[in-house]
Amino acid sequence: MEELIATVQASTAIAVGLIFAFAALGTGIGFGLLGGKFLEGAARQPEMAGMLQVRMFIVAGLLDALSIIGVAFAALLMFGNPLLAAIGS
Amino acid sequence: MEELIATVQASTAIAVGLIFAFAALGTGIGFGLLGGKFLEGAARQPEMAGMLQVRMFIVAGLLDALSIIGVAFAALLMFGNPLLAAIGS
Amino acid sequence: MEELIATVQASTAIAVGLIFAFAALGTGIGFGLLGGKFLEGAARQPEMAGMLQVRMFIVAGLLDALSIIGVAFAALLMFGNPLLAAIGS
Amino acid sequence: MEELIATVQASTAIAVGLIFAFAALGTGIGFGLLGGKFLEGAARQPEMAGMLQVRMFIVAGLLDALSIIGVAFAALLMFGNPLLAAIGS
Amino acid sequence: MEELIATVQASTAIAVGLIFAFAALGTGIGFGLLGGKFLEGAARQPEMAGMLQVRMFIVAGLLDALSIIGVAFAALLMFGNPLLAAIGS
Amino acid sequence: MEELIATVQASTAIAVGLIFAFAALGTGIGFGLLGGKFLEGAARQPEMAGMLQVRMFIVAGLLDALSIIGVAFAALLMFGNPLLAAIGS
Amino acid sequence: MEELIATVQASTAIAVGLIFAFAALGTGIGFGLLGGKFLEGAARQPEMAGMLQVRMFIVAGLLDALSIIGVAFAALLMFGNPLLAAIGS
Amino acid sequence: MEELIATVQASTAIAVGLIFAFAALGTGIGFGLLGGKFLEGAARQPEMAGMLQVRMFIVAGLLDALSIIGVAFAALLMFGNPLLAAIGS
Amino acid sequence: MEELIATVQASTAIAVGLIFAFAALGTGIGFGLLGGKFLEGAARQPEMAGMLQVRMFIVAGLLDALSIIGVAFAALLMFGNPLLAAIGS
Amino acid sequence: MEELIATVQASTAIAVGLIFAFAALGTGIGFGLLGGKFLEGAARQPEMAGMLQVRMFIVAGLLDALSIIGVAFAALLMFGNPLLAAIGS
Amino acid sequence: MEELIATVQASTAIAVGLIFAFAALGTGIGFGLLGGKFLEGAARQPEMAGMLQVRMFIVAGLLDALSIIGVAFAALLMFGNPLLAAIGS
Amino acid sequence: MEELIATVQASTAIAVGLIFAFAALGTGIGFGLLGGKFLEGAARQPEMAGMLQVRMFIVAGLLDALSIIGVAFAALLMFGNPLLAAIGS
Amino acid sequence: MEELIATVQASTAIAVGLIFAFAALGTGIGFGLLGGKFLEGAARQPEMAGMLQVRMFIVAGLLDALSIIGVAFAALLMFGNPLLAAIGS
Amino acid sequence: MEELIATVQASTAIAVGLIFAFAALGTGIGFGLLGGKFLEGAARQPEMAGMLQVRMFIVAGLLDALSIIGVAFAALLMFGNPLLAAIGS
Repeated sequence: MEELIATVQASTAIAVGLIFAFAALGTGIGFGLLGGKFLEGAARQPEMAGMLQVRMFIVAGLLDALSIIGVAFAALLMFGNPLLAAIGS
Repeated sequence: MEELIATVQASTAIAVGLIFAFAALGTGIGFGLLGGKFLEGAARQPEMAGMLQVRMFIVAGLLDALSIIGVAFAALLMFGNPLLAAIGS
Repeated sequence: MEELIATVQASTAIAVGLIFAFAALGTGIGFGLLGGKFLEGAARQPEMAGMLQVRMFIVAGLLDALSIIGVAFAALLMFGNPLLAAIGS
Repeated sequence: MEELIATVQASTAIAVGLIFAFAALGTGIGFGLLGGKFLEGAARQPEMAGMLQVRMFIVAGLLDALSIIGVAFAALLMFGNPLLAAIGS
Repeated sequence: MEELIATVQASTAIAVGLIFAFAALGTGIGFGLLGGKFLEGAARQPEMAGMLQVRMFIVAGLLDALSIIGVAFAALLMFGNPLLAAIGS
Repeated sequence: MEELIATVQASTAIAVGLIFAFAALGTGIGFGLLGGKFLEGAARQPEMAGMLQVRMFIVAGLLDALSIIGVAFAALLMFGNPLLAAIGS
Repeated sequence: MEELIATVQASTAIAVGLIFAFAALGTGIGFGLLGGKFLEGAARQPEMAGMLQVRMFIVAGLLDALSIIGVAFAALLMFGNPLLAAIGS
Repeated sequence: MEELIATVQASTAIAVGLIFAFAALGTGIGFGLLGGKFLEGAARQPEMAGMLQVRMFIVAGLLDALSIIGVAFAALLMFGNPLLAAIGS
Repeated sequence: MEELIATVQASTAIAVGLIFAFAALGTGIGFGLLGGKFLEGAARQPEMAGMLQVRMFIVAGLLDALSIIGVAFAALLMFGNPLLAAIGS
Repeated sequence: MEELIATVQASTAIAVGLIFAFAALGTGIGFGLLGGKFLEGAARQPEMAGMLQVRMFIVAGLLDALSIIGVAFAALLMFGNPLLAAIGS
Repeated sequence: MEELIATVQASTAIAVGLIFAFAALGTGIGFGLLGGKFLEGAARQPEMAGMLQVRMFIVAGLLDALSIIGVAFAALLMFGNPLLAAIGS
Repeated sequence: MEELIATVQASTAIAVGLIFAFAALGTGIGFGLLGGKFLEGAARQPEMAGMLQVRMFIVAGLLDALSIIGVAFAALLMFGNPLLAAIGS
Repeated sequence: MEELIATVQASTAIAVGLIFAFAALGTGIGFGLLGGKFLEGAARQPEMAGMLQVRMFIVAGLLDALSIIGVAFAALLMFGNPLLAAIGS
Repeated sequence: MEELIATVQASTAIAVGLIFAFAALGTGIGFGLLGGKFLEGAARQPEMAGMLQVRMFIVAGLLDALSIIGVAFAALLMFGNPLLAAIGS
């Protein structure tokens, strides 16, 4: 039984690695593009920087959402792997 | 029987990892492009920022839709893997 | 017989992962490009934003169509895998 | 005999996954490019938006055609895999 | 004898998947580029949209030709795989 | 003897898949670029569209040539695989 | 039992490597884009550099967030691998 | 002896597939770029289209040359595989 | 026991290589983009070069942060691999 | 002895495939870029087209040289594989 | 014992190769971008070239830092591989 | 002894294929860029075409140098593989 | 003992190949970008070419540094592989 | 003993192939960029072409340096493979 669990856990480890790796990459590229536009806008019209920042936070929330969900599910996979339930561990 | 379940669960783990990884990457790139255009528009015509934000939310909903569906199905795969039903577990 | 089913289900799991992953990526990139043009147009001519939004919904429907079909077939593969019928399960 | 069918079905599953994945990706990128041009044109000359939309539907039909054909054949592969006929199942 | 047929059919399944996947991707990218130019031209000179559309159909026919041929041969591979003739099935 | 033929036919199937897949991709990208220029030219100088179309057909013939040759040889590989002659089937 | 743990730890090591590698790559590209825009803005309007820097820190926090979370979970995987709990070590 | 021939023929099949696939891709991209420039030139100076077409044929001959040579050698590999001579078939 | 440790150490070595390789690549690309903007700004407004340099150091710190953390954890993996604790070495 | 020759010939077949495939791809891209510039120049200054064509032939010779050499050596590999001399065939 | 050490050393060799290869690639691309901007600035304002060079050295130090650290750790891996300590060599 | 030689020759065949393939690709891309600039210059200033051609030959020599050296060494590998000397053939 | 050394040396050979391959690629791309800017600057302001060349040498030193270090360590790996010390050869 | 040498020589052959392949690719791309700028400069200011050519030779030397060093070491690997010294051949 334990060999079977180990097989599932080993490929779960790779899955967790993939999730965190691409979440970090996607967030890095996304905020690089988004934040650059924000700073550009704030530099051109400083009196509007506060309003722009509020707007950017809203976009940031949307941009991060899937990555954070991925993190949550990766944590779930790590601490209480639901894929093991089917093996009856 | 349990070996068979373990084989299916192991490749399900990789599938779940792929779904979350590419959902996060796609959302990151998508909102980076979309949000940059939004901030640009809001900086140029601040009196229209509210209207633009509402519009952006609609696009954001469409952009996220498939990723969220993917998340839902990945959760389904994790908690009650329907692929196991055929093995009679 | 069950070993054969497990082999098919394991590669079905990978196929389901591929479908959701690329559907999310394609939708993310597609709406990033489309929505950016929409916000740009709406910011330049706000009086036309309503008309543009209706137009965008039509394009969005077309853009999503294949991904949604993919989701439907992936769900079919998960819940009642038609590929197993040939094995006589 | 059933082992042979399982081997064919397993690689058919991967083929079905490939078809849906790339169909969704191609449609996503294609409509992102096409729809962006459409919205741009409609924003610049709103009185011509109706005509442009009709034209776009024609292109959209052509753009989708191959993907839809792919979906149809993938469904055929799933429900009545013609590749199995040669094995005499 | 049937094992040999199964081996050939399994790799034929992958080949069919490749043909449909890349045909859909190529058509998606091709019509995204072509249709964008068409809509651009039609928006700039609406009185010429009919003529342009006829011209585009001719190009569309050429663009689709190879993909449609690929679909036809993929169908042939699926329903009456000529590669099996050499095995004497 | 038949095992040897099956081995050759299996990798011939992959080769046929590669030929059709890349022929469709190359034709898609090529006509996307070429047809876009043609429509652009026809929109700018409608009185010259007929002449341009004739010219484009000549280029189209050259562009398609290799893909059509590839299709012909792929058909040859499928119906009367000359690679099998050496095995003496 | 220890062999099973070693199998899981070996693929955990690869996962940890993936997380750090892509976190560093994403952060490098992201800050390269973001910081370039910041310096550009600061060079053009030096009197606004302080304000821009505060804004950039906010974006930087968002940009780094997922990478830092990834680092934290990678550390967790290294020091107290929760995936091992299921094996009963 | 025949097993050895089958091994060589199987990898020859893959080689033939590679040659046709990349020849079609290269020709597609090449004529897409070349033909676009030709149509552009012909649209701008219609009185010179004949001269340009002659020139383009010369370039087209050069562009196709290697692909045609590849096709010839691929045909040679298919019909009278010289690599088999060394095995003494 | 020692075989198990060797298995974990071997894949730890690959992980360490991945971390350093991508950290160096990310830093190289990041500072190439960032430093180019800095030199551009300093060349245009030399009286502001000192201020810009201070600002750049702040961005540089953020850009390097994840890479340095990766280096630290890679060093940890090399000298006192915490993944081995679970094997009881 | 003949098994050894077959092993070498099988990987020689792949090498020959690689040479022709990339030679055709490189020539396609190269003449696409070069010929486009030539037609552009000839369209702008038709009185100089003859001189330009002579010049282009010189460049074309250089561009093709390595591909033709590759073809020659690939033919050598096919007809009298010098790699077999060491086995004493 | 020595077999275990050889396994670890073999994958350490690949890791060292990866570190040096990507460090050289990253540095090459980074300085190509950075130095180009420096020469551009120095050519436009030669009286400021000295100041710019000092600034560039600072950026160069940051750009090289991670690569040099990678080199140092790669040297450590080569001369006194700390990963072997756990095997008790 | 002859098996050992065959192993080395088989991977030498792949190496020779890699050398010719990338040499042809590199030369194709390089002369596409270089020759395009040459024709551009010659079309703009025809009186200087002779001088430019001489200059281009010098660059062409440098551009080809490494590819020609690669060809020479690939020929050496084919006719008198120095890697076999160590086996004492 | 010698088998172990051969295993380590075989993967060292691949590592050495990777180091030289990417060092040459990185240097080629880097100097292509850097030298192009240098010639551009020297052509525009010939009286400053000497100063620019000195500056370029400094950048060139930095650009080459990591590649040269990589070459040195690759030579070390080839002549006195320090990874073998742990095996006690 | 000779089997061990053959293993090392086989992977050395791949390494030599990698070195020549990427050296030719890097040199091709590098001189394509560099020589294009040189011809551009020489066409614009013919009286300065001699000076520019001297400058270009200096850059060319730097650009080629690593590739030539790679060639030298590849030759060393081929004729007197220092990696074999450790096996005591």
